[in-house]
Amino acid sequence: MKTEIIAVGSELLTPDFQDTNSLYLTAGLNAVGIGISFKSVVGDDEADLARVLRTALARSGLVLCMGGLGPTEDDRTRETLAKVLGRKLVFHEEIEARIAARFRRRGLPMSPSNRKQCYVIEGAEILDNPHGTAPGLWLAAGRRRIALLPGPPREIRPMFEDHVLPRLAGSGQGPVLRRILRLTGLGESAMETLLGPVYATVPPDVAVTTLASPGELSIRLSSFGRDSRAAAEARLERLVQAIERVLGPYVYSRDGASLEAVVGALLKGKGLTIACAESCTGGLIGHRLTDVPGSSGYFLESAVVYSDRAKTKRLGVPKALIEEHGAVSAPVARAMAAGIRRTSGADIGLAVTGIAGPGGGTARKPVGLVYIALARSQGVAVARHIFFGRREDVKFQSSQRALDMVRKTLPKPPRKPL
Amino acid sequence: MKTEIIAVGSELLTPDFQDTNSLYLTAGLNAVGIGISFKSVVGDDEADLARVLRTALARSGLVLCMGGLGPTEDDRTRETLAKVLGRKLVFHEEIEARIAARFRRRGLPMSPSNRKQCYVIEGAEILDNPHGTAPGLWLAAGRRRIALLPGPPREIRPMFEDHVLPRLAGSGQGPVLRRILRLTGLGESAMETLLGPVYATVPPDVAVTTLASPGELSIRLSSFGRDSRAAAEARLERLVQAIERVLGPYVYSRDGASLEAVVGALLKGKGLTIACAESCTGGLIGHRLTDVPGSSGYFLESAVVYSDRAKTKRLGVPKALIEEHGAVSAPVARAMAAGIRRTSGADIGLAVTGIAGPGGGTARKPVGLVYIALARSQGVAVARHIFFGRREDVKFQSSQRALDMVRKTLPKPPRKPL
Repeated sequence: MKTEIIAVGSELLTPDFQDTNSLYLTAGLNAVGIGISFKSVVGDDEADLARVLRTALARSGLVLCMGGLGPTEDDRTRETLAKVLGRKLVFHEEIEARIAARFRRRGLPMSPSNRKQCYVIEGAEILDNPHGTAPGLWLAAGRRRIALLPGPPREIRPMFEDHVLPRLAGSGQGPVLRRILRLTGLGESAMETLLGPVYATVPPDVAVTTLASPGELSIRLSSFGRDSRAAAEARLERLVQAIERVLGPYVYSRDGASLEAVVGALLKGKGLTIACAESCTGGLIGHRLTDVPGSSGYFLESAVVYSDRAKTKRLGVPKALIEEHGAVSAPVARAMAAGIRRTSGADIGLAVTGIAGPGGGTARKPVGLVYIALARSQGVAVARHIFFGRREDVKFQSSQRALDMVRKTLPKPPRKPL
Repeated sequence: MKTEIIAVGSELLTPDFQDTNSLYLTAGLNAVGIGISFKSVVGDDEADLARVLRTALARSGLVLCMGGLGPTEDDRTRETLAKVLGRKLVFHEEIEARIAARFRRRGLPMSPSNRKQCYVIEGAEILDNPHGTAPGLWLAAGRRRIALLPGPPREIRPMFEDHVLPRLAGSGQGPVLRRILRLTGLGESAMETLLGPVYATVPPDVAVTTLASPGELSIRLSSFGRDSRAAAEARLERLVQAIERVLGPYVYSRDGASLEAVVGALLKGKGLTIACAESCTGGLIGHRLTDVPGSSGYFLESAVVYSDRAKTKRLGVPKALIEEHGAVSAPVARAMAAGIRRTSGADIGLAVTGIAGPGGGTARKPVGLVYIALARSQGVAVARHIFFGRREDVKFQSSQRALDMVRKTLPKPPRKPL
């Protein structure tokens, strides 16, 4: 059985946009033992879309088609597939009621344009969409199966996980388990070198892929074995342990959790509070920490002290210290960390000061130079880094290393096997 | 004439790799007036590749196929296309001489595996590859034209510029121009309703697509006319003006610029400074403002005052005010905005307080309730919002509305046509 992913949307045929949903769907499908044979992208033109759907149905047994389910004129996927299959569209009042309720919760009337989303292709199952108005559809046509899914990632992801994957159970090779290790603090080639001996021990029914972006690495393990779930789990666990033996200090998460969530759980577990003083990160550390639900239990505040005046006024960094060493320096980073800890009353004060670029660098203090300091009752530690990349990359890597410095400072909770 | 881009390579069907060459080719083709109708990705399986080539030749007049021209076993594009077209492969000694010379320059013998790269499909023109061993091919088959191009970006780019684009001169309709309008402050269906009358006036040679995510909408216009660049520009400008007549207040950018860049440019232009007091956004507003290079010229600081104590200590929000109205209330938002303006010395104080969820909501103060206040010398304005979605969505929409409040407060610069 061939599997095909179709992305619909004229913007995906421009130089500015690219389908990325298919990567996510591929990962999920691979995890249940289904490989992809074809990917297609087509615009909103109905004749083109009809051609692509016909081609897909002729060559693939499973077709996942995403996009073009919205309320606008150019959203034609539902209508076009109905024509291609020679089936009617049927109005479903329960969908209308659900969309109307969604608008009502927002104090708005349902827009007439949303009515088209209430039509369902004859014989299709409706896939609920709690994150948007467009329901998905699941159809069988002969031996072929087709899913119509919405385009926005926040809508397609839960729908795929909750409604598509369960319908595919048993289609692939067998219970496929996945593990995602996330790492920071080392580069991709260093990781590959350290992993070398581990690669040699990977069983044939386990796939290992690595992904790298500035400041963040991940190792994805998928077990495709035909044996029991317990055996597959044991196999993955042995591999995770082998990886941790060589990369242990860099692995911050064994279950895909974000670094801010890991740090948050550590703080919560120890009953500690944190406050930040951010210069070049501009608020990103506070933003990341507060992305975690319940972070108000340990995150007190962040002073985004972009100007020198703010560093002095908010944190008591002596003006003379800034004048002597410069705002981007180890002594100022230390004073910022100690200052935010003292003025906030937090257990941990975390400070970052650096040059995010593209301007502002000098020969002695280049773009990417960043000092990170951590203050506790025991004293203040400071680390100097040089990060590469664009402004956003320098900001992200700074936030990543700062959060990781907190993680490494806190005692690890007792290890529980996943 | 439809145009199609095919990317060949099994790695492009994994979760970890994505074709990006096609974006580059699309930009180049658009610039000579050629739009893309289909994109396909297929792996190294010869039967699958043959299917994809046959489909492309049946529906498209111009097919650009990249990848699979290398020396290894799984590089089969040349051979497969020859079979699909029913043509022979002919050995070309001048290609062999060129490849051998390339190896000689590196002091290496030519590898036997490179011999397969010396075969050319009967009737094809050879496209020289100064950056690799794989020559490209250019073929006509009836009225259809086909280019086989190498996969590595440093090889395909010069070959495309030097040998493919010149062969396409005059094929296109004229330069494709684009405009991206970005909007915030209204929903997708409201936008569609307001755009209804405008859609009716869109000329046939202009494509309009819209994209929506929480807090952000965009309208993309592409002009494909056969006439002059000036005429195409005038056509787009008329459409932009028609859109602005119905959606004007929501349009923050006519050239794709981000809201933080637009607000930054306005502040810089007026010589004004800004400081923020963030509660539920957690630092996101500071993060976004500081994503703009040069933001240190107008952004002074952000006080991320998550705890009540920080609101009082950093901004002087009276404890009694918080006790009486709650931290998420209009009076506290006003006091935060006035407090950050006063203590930072900025011209504008921007404050946000709300309930990002998923916990913390009550019947009177539900999740998503957010107050945004803006303090200037003239006084303090406050607005109440209810945002929907997950925690991240509420945070982003809050930051978006807050930045937009600044944009709307500042006098617009004189309008310059793009």
